[in-house]
Amino acid sequence: MTATSKSLRLNEDLPLDSGQVLSGVEIAYETYGELAADKSNAILICHALTGDQYVASNHPITGKPGWWERMVGPGKVIDTDRFHVICANVIGSCMGSTGPASLASDGQPYAMRFPVITIRDMTRGLVALLDGLGIAQLHTVIGGSMGGMQALSLAANFPERAARVLVIASTARHSAQNIAFHEVGRQAIMADPNWRDGNYYGEDCAPDNGLAVARMAAHITYLSEEGLTEKFGRRLQDRPDGTKGAKSFGFDADFQVESYLRYQGSGFTQRFDANSYLYITRAMDYFDLAEEHGGLLADAFAGSKARFCLVSFDSDWLYPTAESRHIVHALNAAGAPVSFVELSAPFGHDSFLLDVPALDRVMKGFLE
Amino acid sequence: MTATSKSLRLNEDLPLDSGQVLSGVEIAYETYGELAADKSNAILICHALTGDQYVASNHPITGKPGWWERMVGPGKVIDTDRFHVICANVIGSCMGSTGPASLASDGQPYAMRFPVITIRDMTRGLVALLDGLGIAQLHTVIGGSMGGMQALSLAANFPERAARVLVIASTARHSAQNIAFHEVGRQAIMADPNWRDGNYYGEDCAPDNGLAVARMAAHITYLSEEGLTEKFGRRLQDRPDGTKGAKSFGFDADFQVESYLRYQGSGFTQRFDANSYLYITRAMDYFDLAEEHGGLLADAFAGSKARFCLVSFDSDWLYPTAESRHIVHALNAAGAPVSFVELSAPFGHDSFLLDVPALDRVMKGFLE
Repeated sequence: MTATSKSLRLNEDLPLDSGQVLSGVEIAYETYGELAADKSNAILICHALTGDQYVASNHPITGKPGWWERMVGPGKVIDTDRFHVICANVIGSCMGSTGPASLASDGQPYAMRFPVITIRDMTRGLVALLDGLGIAQLHTVIGGSMGGMQALSLAANFPERAARVLVIASTARHSAQNIAFHEVGRQAIMADPNWRDGNYYGEDCAPDNGLAVARMAAHITYLSEEGLTEKFGRRLQDRPDGTKGAKSFGFDADFQVESYLRYQGSGFTQRFDANSYLYITRAMDYFDLAEEHGGLLADAFAGSKARFCLVSFDSDWLYPTAESRHIVHALNAAGAPVSFVELSAPFGHDSFLLDVPALDRVMKGFLE
Repeated sequence: MTATSKSLRLNEDLPLDSGQVLSGVEIAYETYGELAADKSNAILICHALTGDQYVASNHPITGKPGWWERMVGPGKVIDTDRFHVICANVIGSCMGSTGPASLASDGQPYAMRFPVITIRDMTRGLVALLDGLGIAQLHTVIGGSMGGMQALSLAANFPERAARVLVIASTARHSAQNIAFHEVGRQAIMADPNWRDGNYYGEDCAPDNGLAVARMAAHITYLSEEGLTEKFGRRLQDRPDGTKGAKSFGFDADFQVESYLRYQGSGFTQRFDANSYLYITRAMDYFDLAEEHGGLLADAFAGSKARFCLVSFDSDWLYPTAESRHIVHALNAAGAPVSFVELSAPFGHDSFLLDVPALDRVMKGFLE
């Protein structure tokens, strides 16, 4: 669909949780649908770890449709005939917003000189964008996975900026297991000699092998065991020599699931920057909304007047339903209006991106 | 405790499922306790993926106690005052039995010229060892995890060789998710430039970085989410400069779980060969006992006269209880006597190696 690609350069420095500041920040974003004269119809969609601002328009590198094309458009659940939809690339990422591949003041890429950022820092960038656009209050902020963390962070730290908060398949804190999987990915990248302590920009080779392994490990956590069994089971690939589904007794991708994972890994390296992967996973691991607010999650929402909607999926073992329920209990304790549903879907964590009609109905109801 | 370290060189070639044969096979093994004159008191313990024959004696490289020291010894559950306990390194491994690091007939290490082996091939090696020791029938074959696969394979393919079969935290087939995690590990090893297509023996560097990443990813699957939360949660490391548990806003191991994983990864590389890791994970991924026997698991046990005992753990998400139940149903259909229990333990898949008193009781009862 028709999108407007823009980038906003912030006039003021962005203060960060680390105590550092980021100067000359660019926020790249896409918009869809018209902004009402009273600016009351803006929806901010926050993207996940490896997502980007191309929520409903073709990706400039892969040419593939937007990652939530099924959800955003004229007459769709997030109806662009009615809403002005904004989706911005988070800082630290690599699709136009300031990140480790951007040039520092010395004209060289930041690389690992880029400051470690947090989810709240990403949210600060989004709020600066809203300021730049003159949008005082969003109709709704929406996010799945890491996008949900930003939505929660916005509600907690900038409570007046969103009237509705929709959080899908997310969590208020990263668990030890979440951190562990991310650490495997970071170690895979840093073990790649082409990583060169992050200084691979302008070199012939990027740490693609390490990044692919990181993506493969993460990708398993996005899918359910049942989903993998249904989709691939133990089915074998047809061999290059034409043999139908036989074991090679070698180390080629014999099983379809191996081939699928390799494809996911190598495809990812074409569109994502390894250093951005390090920084964004770090931000997610640091995320603990209660800790930011004195240790009690309910206190994070004490100032909120927003309405909340939480959605989890029964097959999501990355951010299982218990994590959403934990947030709901905190919202209840804070007296915030909240609806919560656990949906049944076979796709694991990735359910929020896939065809789950019940999710459409829940979202449509919440946006009424 | 006192162990006898031995190695048996097989006089005959070992036929493999791939159609190849392995010549001059060595099987390195440890024994504990006296073999009865009628040879009726032998117990074979089969080790897991990264295990070895040092079940109850110090590891020659790490110096650490045997991996099942708590279970094997005088007066212990597997009582060496009563039983003659045998534990052999599987073929394909790296602790003395023939594997990729062994010399081929040309005097050079096999490396990736080593044939791809299966669990049944490992079992053939173990049976050849029993033949060499003149043991016609084991009192019991015992195995956890991959050891359980060998125990099942022995029961199915050599039904007269064991009177009792004890299978703990195991499965009759690798699932798509199991294969996926192993494939991540293999890709991590193969992506390491020091792997050199497997030809790193005698070089200055082995693919330790890749092997460490593989181990880290696998290690997460051995633990439960709850266990990780209990053990580490989001607790931070004390900083090298003495700062107590504060975020570094960098990429050091801030969280205790990161530090633990890194330690697990690097420690593993000191005692294990990367090519062995490739071959053994491949064997596990190929394992599908039903497929070997015409597609019906019950048929695998048609000729068995053994008594079976299956144990699973409620927090094991690598080989969950459903996999054990699947085996039990097949044994029921085959008319084999089987007892089955799901034990409650917080440690995930690794529960079979850790202090779970209920496991001791179940095993003791089965060995009466």
